Amino acid sequence: MTLELTGQSIIGYKSGSGSGEKLEGLNPATGENLKPLYYAATNEEVNEAASLAASAFESFSRLSPSKRAEFLRQIAANIEALGDVLTERASAETGLPVARIQGESARTCGQLRLFADLVSEGSWVDARIDRAMPERKPLPRPDIRSMLRPVGPVVVFCASNFPLAFSVAGGDTASAFAAGCTVIVKAHHAHPGTAEMVGQAVRNAAKQLELPDGVFSLLYGSGTGVGVALVKHPLIKAGGFTGSRSGGRALFDAASSRPEPIPFYAEMSSVNPVFILPEAMSERTAQIAQGLHGSVTLGAGQFCTKPGLVFVESTPKASEFASVLGGLMATTPEFTMLTPGIRSSYEKGVSSRVSSAAVATVARKEVDCGPGKATAGTALFETNAESYLGNSELSEEVFGPSTLLIKYSGREQMLHLARTLEGHLTATVHGTDNDMATAADLIAILEDKVGRIVFNGYPTGVEVCHAMVHGGPYPATTDGRSTSVGTRAIFRFTRQICYQNSPDNALPDELKAANPLGIWRLVDGELSKAS
Amino acid sequence: MTLELTGQSIIGYKSGSGSGEKLEGLNPATGENLKPLYYAATNEEVNEAASLAASAFESFSRLSPSKRAEFLRQIAANIEALGDVLTERASAETGLPVARIQGESARTCGQLRLFADLVSEGSWVDARIDRAMPERKPLPRPDIRSMLRPVGPVVVFCASNFPLAFSVAGGDTASAFAAGCTVIVKAHHAHPGTAEMVGQAVRNAAKQLELPDGVFSLLYGSGTGVGVALVKHPLIKAGGFTGSRSGGRALFDAASSRPEPIPFYAEMSSVNPVFILPEAMSERTAQIAQGLHGSVTLGAGQFCTKPGLVFVESTPKASEFASVLGGLMATTPEFTMLTPGIRSSYEKGVSSRVSSAAVATVARKEVDCGPGKATAGTALFETNAESYLGNSELSEEVFGPSTLLIKYSGREQMLHLARTLEGHLTATVHGTDNDMATAADLIAILEDKVGRIVFNGYPTGVEVCHAMVHGGPYPATTDGRSTSVGTRAIFRFTRQICYQNSPDNALPDELKAANPLGIWRLVDGELSKAS
Repeated sequence: MTLELTGQSIIGYKSGSGSGEKLEGLNPATGENLKPLYYAATNEEVNEAASLAASAFESFSRLSPSKRAEFLRQIAANIEALGDVLTERASAETGLPVARIQGESARTCGQLRLFADLVSEGSWVDARIDRAMPERKPLPRPDIRSMLRPVGPVVVFCASNFPLAFSVAGGDTASAFAAGCTVIVKAHHAHPGTAEMVGQAVRNAAKQLELPDGVFSLLYGSGTGVGVALVKHPLIKAGGFTGSRSGGRALFDAASSRPEPIPFYAEMSSVNPVFILPEAMSERTAQIAQGLHGSVTLGAGQFCTKPGLVFVESTPKASEFASVLGGLMATTPEFTMLTPGIRSSYEKGVSSRVSSAAVATVARKEVDCGPGKATAGTALFETNAESYLGNSELSEEVFGPSTLLIKYSGREQMLHLARTLEGHLTATVHGTDNDMATAADLIAILEDKVGRIVFNGYPTGVEVCHAMVHGGPYPATTDGRSTSVGTRAIFRFTRQICYQNSPDNALPDELKAANPLGIWRLVDGELSKAS
Repeated sequence: MTLELTGQSIIGYKSGSGSGEKLEGLNPATGENLKPLYYAATNEEVNEAASLAASAFESFSRLSPSKRAEFLRQIAANIEALGDVLTERASAETGLPVARIQGESARTCGQLRLFADLVSEGSWVDARIDRAMPERKPLPRPDIRSMLRPVGPVVVFCASNFPLAFSVAGGDTASAFAAGCTVIVKAHHAHPGTAEMVGQAVRNAAKQLELPDGVFSLLYGSGTGVGVALVKHPLIKAGGFTGSRSGGRALFDAASSRPEPIPFYAEMSSVNPVFILPEAMSERTAQIAQGLHGSVTLGAGQFCTKPGLVFVESTPKASEFASVLGGLMATTPEFTMLTPGIRSSYEKGVSSRVSSAAVATVARKEVDCGPGKATAGTALFETNAESYLGNSELSEEVFGPSTLLIKYSGREQMLHLARTLEGHLTATVHGTDNDMATAADLIAILEDKVGRIVFNGYPTGVEVCHAMVHGGPYPATTDGRSTSVGTRAIFRFTRQICYQNSPDNALPDELKAANPLGIWRLVDGELSKAS
């Protein structure tokens, strides 16, 4: 398949004007710029995309579920049809290996089809019917029916570390389309070509299904201007973001301080604590060291679920563990990180730990890379509970292939450490049956700190399924009620709406007496598929 | 039953110190002060209540569903046991008739029992299980299970216009307890005695069930200090409020700008547009005038669902309608409003319309009441679409027994008027079958503007049931995804949490393999009660 990159924003079925600020892709492995030049959207283009999205919402939000599912499946098919063209461009723009991009592409398409299945099945709308009771005393009860409806046009921000699965046609876009929202994507400057390819796949799918102009737009921007303008635009009704804590918080603040505040789901920083309980440490020293090494270095440590804090009891076995893990880290080949900027932040975080009196450097692979390149090596640090508690910067995220071991003395100190944790996406517990028999208090603490607790495994690798929760209390996200992965994510972009004594033919199909879609509904408090 | 009012805040199982600022109940019908004096909570008391709520949350949030249901039922029983003592005090403090208070008390206790039933049944937690697939290629799938958990300690603000149903043991408190949250209530200064009676009922229920100290507190405050301190307190994780737009927005801003932002559900202003379509107007002129009169004047017009904008086509029948409604309004006896402050705001809103060149006064009952009293009369105004669109203050809420007719010319203008609406709790459409046959575009517009669409009825009178949605887009509420009435309200105070490869005995009962609670669960994408 050939595909011509235009360097332009996609504004509904039109292209951008090419008059905004310029930006350019970069190969972080070679430092070379990647053609074409991209042009940031102008204020007029932001307004146009928002107006189109609002006008398209009127009909798109009322499309039949089967048609919406077809749209999602067509997007997946169009992405797959891009084949190597997409894979190679994404790899060149991100430094991520082709195999990883292929896996991410499969995940992205699988995700789109999972939402298509969800929408086809249809019960996700939580339809509820409380039938009239005309004879009730003292007052008759009216007929009340309610369901979830899409919230309106949504802005989605691409993430640098997932050029496909959390970008143009990633989780937020898939769940927003599935819910019935129109979507404006703000491209990430780190992979503009990948964004355009996927953007064209989405636009083509919309055209193939003859959807209204404006169901989808993709806007470029070099700084924060375009993103903030979208979040503040009165026609935008919700937003989703994956990125830095400062960026996510700034956008959340913009969303919350609007004249009409809107929900803004920013996934920001998470250090993903791991607790290795004593018997597991003793019995599985090398096995856990290997597993953890794999998890810390996967994708050059550039996952929001990378385990960055590892709590271990201060025992001889823990020293052996540190030594095995240190050996693995020291012999890990260097990585190309996503961008020179991310590499530089990583090096800054690592250097600060290397020079900290509170921390010992167990392993550190220094890499000297040329300008425009983003090569970096692993780092393993170690400290004790007192130093960790006394230096708040040690609990902060270092995005990249590095982690920190914290040695504690005894169970009470471990529980105290757990209680001092901020919100995270995940927490992990390694324990034998004996360890687990006394871990209920630790689990209870972690339940209030994270979105997902992993047992005897590793937090990287997030399943896309019905039960997944990829979210967590602040600062992991700005809205700890929610997830950005899995079918629960559809709830982000919905609101409840209720009809009282509606004529049957004025109701959405989901609420009609005959249950024409055959979905599960809560009828007078009982789940039923009956008509 | 006798009950001694102490004038003190309730801080877990202790009483306040009586050292804060003083406030006093007032009978708005007579202007007399009501004993005892109440004392605002001090900063130390706010901190103490928050600390207790956080510490009680650890065990209360893990209480068995049956025990939580028992707590809710015991609160209802304790409120009922107060009998006339409560009814009379609430009536004296609010000017609302005893019969209305009795109805509201029944609703409040019914609401507590509905949540008890919901929690006993247990399926509301949205339990999901995606079982492991150890053979899956390229990677095995882990076992993933998730459900809703309570968000943490919650602050609930009492509303002046519902001294029971939206106050100490009202909807937000019931749904928060049902979800497993501990609750701190901020009393409303307009009914401190009622608040204390219900507060004692809740505290006694907690004692009877031997719940941990701090599950419930009730704090008094004269200004905004105590409320803002609670919303900003780091241990508080969500809030619920019903009241003014300025108050709700200020608290939402405080919640959103915290170092750790929290969800804040403020229900604020809603003018509840009514559309009377032409054939219905022609066929049911007097009937709709009577129904609307009842709805506008119910509870002295002091409902957030009071219809305050009535759109009618400019026809002779509409003039007849205005005249019938005007006659009913003019002969309506005067009301005692909730407080002298609310009366004064009402009079200000009415006077501004009386003196507006854009508005005609159809009926106006002026009432001269003495100091400290809150007597007021009805008012009916009329304008046309152009004047309405040109004077934005005409679309604002006037809280009290008044409404505004807007005459439009033709269907296109009606649709334009609908499109210009802000967010509201409700919209109402009166139409015959013929009217409805061409109303799909109006309904589609209203679906994106309100939480509940009422057909051929009146928006006052909110059913407490599974399907109810009492919410709506801003400025009706600060979070249009949600409802404050009905069992859907439990979702306000929850977050999603997920367990990966957890040992069965470390899971909550809701997610254990054997399904010991016998609840509905989504197992591998299929709803099932199986173990």
